[in-house]
Amino acid sequence: MSADILIANISKHISLSAEEKEFFISLLQPRSLKAGEFLLREGDICRYETFVTKGCLITYYLDKNGLEHIIDFSIEEWWADDLYSFFTQTSSRAYIKAIENADILQISKNNLEILFQKIPKFERFFRLLFQNAYIAQREQINSTLSDSAEERYISFIKKKPYAEKRFSQKDIASYLA
Amino acid sequence: MSADILIANISKHISLSAEEKEFFISLLQPRSLKAGEFLLREGDICRYETFVTKGCLITYYLDKNGLEHIIDFSIEEWWADDLYSFFTQTSSRAYIKAIENADILQISKNNLEILFQKIPKFERFFRLLFQNAYIAQREQINSTLSDSAEERYISFIKKKPYAEKRFSQKDIASYLA
Repeated sequence: MSADILIANISKHISLSAEEKEFFISLLQPRSLKAGEFLLREGDICRYETFVTKGCLITYYLDKNGLEHIIDFSIEEWWADDLYSFFTQTSSRAYIKAIENADILQISKNNLEILFQKIPKFERFFRLLFQNAYIAQREQINSTLSDSAEERYISFIKKKPYAEKRFSQKDIASYLA
Repeated sequence: MSADILIANISKHISLSAEEKEFFISLLQPRSLKAGEFLLREGDICRYETFVTKGCLITYYLDKNGLEHIIDFSIEEWWADDLYSFFTQTSSRAYIKAIENADILQISKNNLEILFQKIPKFERFFRLLFQNAYIAQREQINSTLSDSAEERYISFIKKKPYAEKRFSQKDIASYLA
């Protein structure tokens, strides 16, 4: 069952009883996406946090000239969402799209609040997740501002060694652009 | 006692017993800074989260030409820190300096971990704090990328209506630069 991957991921940080796992799973909505299908488009409000259990999603922006700038590849055990839109419940500037057939698990903002009320130890897991999101956001800014294209490529391949096999050259170029 | 301001701020989000408040306060280190004194310099590791109870601190970067770019003014009831450096315990690129005589309360990374272990409900408070830091970081990027100087000035004065009275024209210009 696909929630096992998410439970295993969470259990690295907090320990959950069988009942707590069950309650958490009851708040999740599983969904499948075909390659090419959109999870979010510019102007939408990001209403879910999305965990990828299979496949790959990309998050990208369109610039003034309509060019894609990929800011994230989310494969198995990663999250795919526009956290800014999710936190503020305002329109997203991002697109999120499956580039492989994908299975995802989603938790709505409302269910996340229910989860925090019912099982407060999830606060820790999401506190850590948001710390990491803060770090990733900063690294992205720093890298765009100060690294050369070559440095960014090397750092990208180091972080995602599977990238050259799994992503198209076009998508990698769009990430580094 | 200056910790009252911080306790009142935290109590907006979580309820604490008298013992919990006392334990939390025992983990804080109060400190005073004179106007002009530095809390953090580029190359330092940010070892504390810092809450301002009196006065004002600025956080800024120096660009290649040695020009200051202020990214935050932290007055009473705000935090002043380089969260990226704090989370990763790597060298900071920022300077944090008092621009008025200031009183601050600091909690070290180690004491914060102790706090989370001992009183897990603090996870919620810091989860919310880090969400807001994520939002602020994104708004700063968006504003730098897309708003005109005038739009940024209007948005700044709206967010910080006390700014024109309290900060120098030079510092405001450095924030908007």
